[in-house]
Amino acid sequence: MIRFFNGRVLTLDGGYDITDSEVWTDGAQIRYVGPERADAPVFEREIDLRGDLLMPGFKNAHAHSAMTFVRSFADDLPLQRWLFDKIFPLEAKLTPEDVYDQTKLAILEYLAGGITAAFDMYYKREAFAQASVECGFRMVLNGALSAGDDFSVADADCEKFNAMDPLISYIPGIHAEYTASTELLAYMKGLIDRTRKPFFTHNSETKSETEECVQRHGLTPTALHEEYGLFEYGGGGFHCVHLSDADMEIFRRRGLYAVLCPASNAKLASGIAPVAAMERAGLNLAIGTDGASSNNALNMFREMYLVSVLQKLRESDAASGDAARVLGMACSGGAGAMGLNAECIAPGKLADLIVIDLHRPNMYPRHNIVKNLVYSGSNTNVRLTMVGGKVLYEDGQYFVGEDPEEICRRAQRSAERLTRE
Amino acid sequence: MIRFFNGRVLTLDGGYDITDSEVWTDGAQIRYVGPERADAPVFEREIDLRGDLLMPGFKNAHAHSAMTFVRSFADDLPLQRWLFDKIFPLEAKLTPEDVYDQTKLAILEYLAGGITAAFDMYYKREAFAQASVECGFRMVLNGALSAGDDFSVADADCEKFNAMDPLISYIPGIHAEYTASTELLAYMKGLIDRTRKPFFTHNSETKSETEECVQRHGLTPTALHEEYGLFEYGGGGFHCVHLSDADMEIFRRRGLYAVLCPASNAKLASGIAPVAAMERAGLNLAIGTDGASSNNALNMFREMYLVSVLQKLRESDAASGDAARVLGMACSGGAGAMGLNAECIAPGKLADLIVIDLHRPNMYPRHNIVKNLVYSGSNTNVRLTMVGGKVLYEDGQYFVGEDPEEICRRAQRSAERLTRE
Repeated sequence: MIRFFNGRVLTLDGGYDITDSEVWTDGAQIRYVGPERADAPVFEREIDLRGDLLMPGFKNAHAHSAMTFVRSFADDLPLQRWLFDKIFPLEAKLTPEDVYDQTKLAILEYLAGGITAAFDMYYKREAFAQASVECGFRMVLNGALSAGDDFSVADADCEKFNAMDPLISYIPGIHAEYTASTELLAYMKGLIDRTRKPFFTHNSETKSETEECVQRHGLTPTALHEEYGLFEYGGGGFHCVHLSDADMEIFRRRGLYAVLCPASNAKLASGIAPVAAMERAGLNLAIGTDGASSNNALNMFREMYLVSVLQKLRESDAASGDAARVLGMACSGGAGAMGLNAECIAPGKLADLIVIDLHRPNMYPRHNIVKNLVYSGSNTNVRLTMVGGKVLYEDGQYFVGEDPEEICRRAQRSAERLTRE
Repeated sequence: MIRFFNGRVLTLDGGYDITDSEVWTDGAQIRYVGPERADAPVFEREIDLRGDLLMPGFKNAHAHSAMTFVRSFADDLPLQRWLFDKIFPLEAKLTPEDVYDQTKLAILEYLAGGITAAFDMYYKREAFAQASVECGFRMVLNGALSAGDDFSVADADCEKFNAMDPLISYIPGIHAEYTASTELLAYMKGLIDRTRKPFFTHNSETKSETEECVQRHGLTPTALHEEYGLFEYGGGGFHCVHLSDADMEIFRRRGLYAVLCPASNAKLASGIAPVAAMERAGLNLAIGTDGASSNNALNMFREMYLVSVLQKLRESDAASGDAARVLGMACSGGAGAMGLNAECIAPGKLADLIVIDLHRPNMYPRHNIVKNLVYSGSNTNVRLTMVGGKVLYEDGQYFVGEDPEEICRRAQRSAERLTRE
C-alpha cells in the first residue's frame, strides 16, 4: 500500500471541495480516503504531499496517440485537405514499430501533463497496446473502421483487447460517417448487439461533413447512427462541434458523451462546440486532445482553458464556461465516456492519481484552487502521475520501463523516415 | 563574458532560420554570434546548450504585473462590471508593499515562462520599479492616468524612471479614453511634445467602450487620440479588438503597435482581434498577457497559441495565424513596442535570452521547431532565462536576490489582506 499524506485532496466525489485528507492506494485501487488513522498499516511507500494537491488524473477522451509523428509537419490546412491529402497517405506507410515508438512518445507527454488514460482511435492496435502496457499506461481503444476495411477485425479486437490486460479495454466505433458505408453501419449494429458495448465515432466535427451527411442520408450523423441503433448501449461522439438541437436531444436521451476537442477544432478552423447549449441540454461532456497533428500538444491544461474561454467568446458571456464544471469534464467526464471506474477519489476506484504542485508562482495566490487549475495551471504544476497504483512520473523523472530519451530518439527517426518523400 | 555553445540558435534577425552558432554575451549585451572561434577569450561562464535552442526572450507587451493579487478572485464577469465593481475598489486598497510583493510574484512567473521584459501599466510605480530592479528584471512602465489624477505625476515619472536604472524605462500613457477627460488628453499632448515619447493606452478593448467613445466624441478612441496629436512620436494601443479600417490606417501611417491580448479578451468575452486584417494592413503587432486577474496566467506560450488559433477560428481559415509570424510578434514585435534594443540576437543587442529545452516529449519530432514552439511549446520547455546578461532562472532555480518561496508567501498574505471584506 502507498500513502499520500500532508496535502490537500480534491476528490471530485460529488463536488469541488478540497479537504486535508490522506489517501491510501492498494495495488491498482484506492483503499482509503479520510483523516489520519491510528490503525494505519505498514506502507510500501509514504508520499509527503508537502501541502500540494492530490486529485484524479486527467482523462484524454479523444486521442490518436501515434499521430505524434506528424506534429508540426502538416499544419495550417483545412480539415478535409489536411486529412485526405496529407495525413491518410502518410498513415498508409505506418508500420507496427512506428506506432509502438510514437505511442510511447505520446505517453511521455501524457504523463508529464497529468493525463492518466487516453481513449485512442488508431491503427496497428497490437503494437499500440503493447507500448501502453509496457509503459504501465491506461488506454481505451476505439475502433476506427472505414468502408474498405475487413469488418471482422472489430469483433476480434473487441474480444482480444478487453481480455488482454487490466490497463487495456476496447469500445467499438467507426472512423466517421464520411468514411463509412451502409454495410459497415449494419455490421456495427450487429457488433453492438453481440457485445452490448457503447459506440463512439468522430461526429459533426466540421460543418461541411455534417451537411454532406444530411445530403447523403437525409439525416445528421447523430440521427443516422441512432437510426441504425448504434447507441443502444450508450457511447457518444468525438468533437460534436456542429450538433443540432435534435442531435443534442438524442445525446441526452441516450446518456451519450460529447467529447470536446477545442484545440484541434480551433487549429483546423472547424469551429467552437456549443458547450453552453450542451450543458443546458444536460449532456455528458468529456475533453480530448485529438492527435498531435491537429493540436499540436497533448496537454489537458490547454484544453480545459480553451473549453472555458472559447465558450465565453462563443456566447459573448464571460460567465459561461464555468471552470469547476470544465475540470469535472476533464477528469470525471472522461472516465464516464471511457467506461473507467476512475471518475473520483474514493475507496474502490482506480488509483489513477496526480499531484499538483501548488507552490509554483502560477498557483499564487490561492483564492480558488479549482479556478487556478483551469485558468492558470500548466504542465509545470504536475509533480507526480500515478496509473493503476504505480508512479510513472515524478519530479520530472519517468518510470516507464525504459529510458525516455531513447523513446524520443526512436520516435524522431521513425517520423523522419515516414515523412521523407 | 558568457558563452553559449553546442546548441541551436534562432536569432530572429531577419527571418526564422535556426543555425548551429554560438553566442557570447558581455555585460548586458550580446557581443558575438557565429561559428566557434579560435581566438575566443576566457569566459566567465560557458553554458553548454546540449543541443537545445537559444532564442530572444519573450516580451510581454501588455501587463499589470501586480494584479496577481486578484488571480482567480473575480472571474467570470463582463469587463466593465469586473473592472468597476470588483477591481477598482480592491485596487484602492493597494499599498506600495502590496505592489512590491505582487510584482515580484509576477516576475517569478515571467522568468519561468521565458519572458524577459514586461510593458507594465499600474500604480505605486516606485515600489514596482524597486521590485523589478531587485530581481534584475526589465520593465517598461506605462502611464495609467485617469481624469481625477494629478497629471503632473506623469512628467515627474517620465523623467525619474527613464533615469533610474538600465532595466527600467517609462513611456507615457493614459488608462483609457473611458476614464480620461479632455483636460487629460490636452495635458498628454503637452507631455508628448515635451518628451518626444510614444503614447500607449488601452484601446478598443470592448465593443461598447468603442461605441460609447464614438457617442461622446464622434470619433473612435484611435481617431480621438490622433486628433489630439498623441501619436506624433509613435506608440500604440493595448488590446485593439475592435479597430475599424480607418483606425488601422492611422496605426499603419503612424507605425503604431497593436498589442494583442488574446487570453484576456477571450476570458472577458471581449472578442477576437482582427489579426489577419491587421497583418494585411501592415500593422506592427506585439503580444501581452494583460493582468493575472483577466487571463489568469502570465504565459507567452498560451498567448502565442491563442493568437494563432483564434485567428483561424475568426477567419474560418486554418492557414491564418501563421506560427512563425506569431513568434515574431512575441519577441521582436514586443521589443519594438517597448522601445527595447532586444528584437533579435545580434551583436550590440540586449542579452535578454532564453534557452528552450528541445528534449522534452512535446518538442518531438522536430519537423519544424518554430511551429513546435507556437503549437506545442509550453513553460516546461524553458530551461534558462537571462535578462541583461544575468541568468535569473535556470533548471527550475531562481536567482532573483531572495528566496522565491518567501516571495510567494508574502504575496499570499498580501492578497488575503486585500481581498478580505
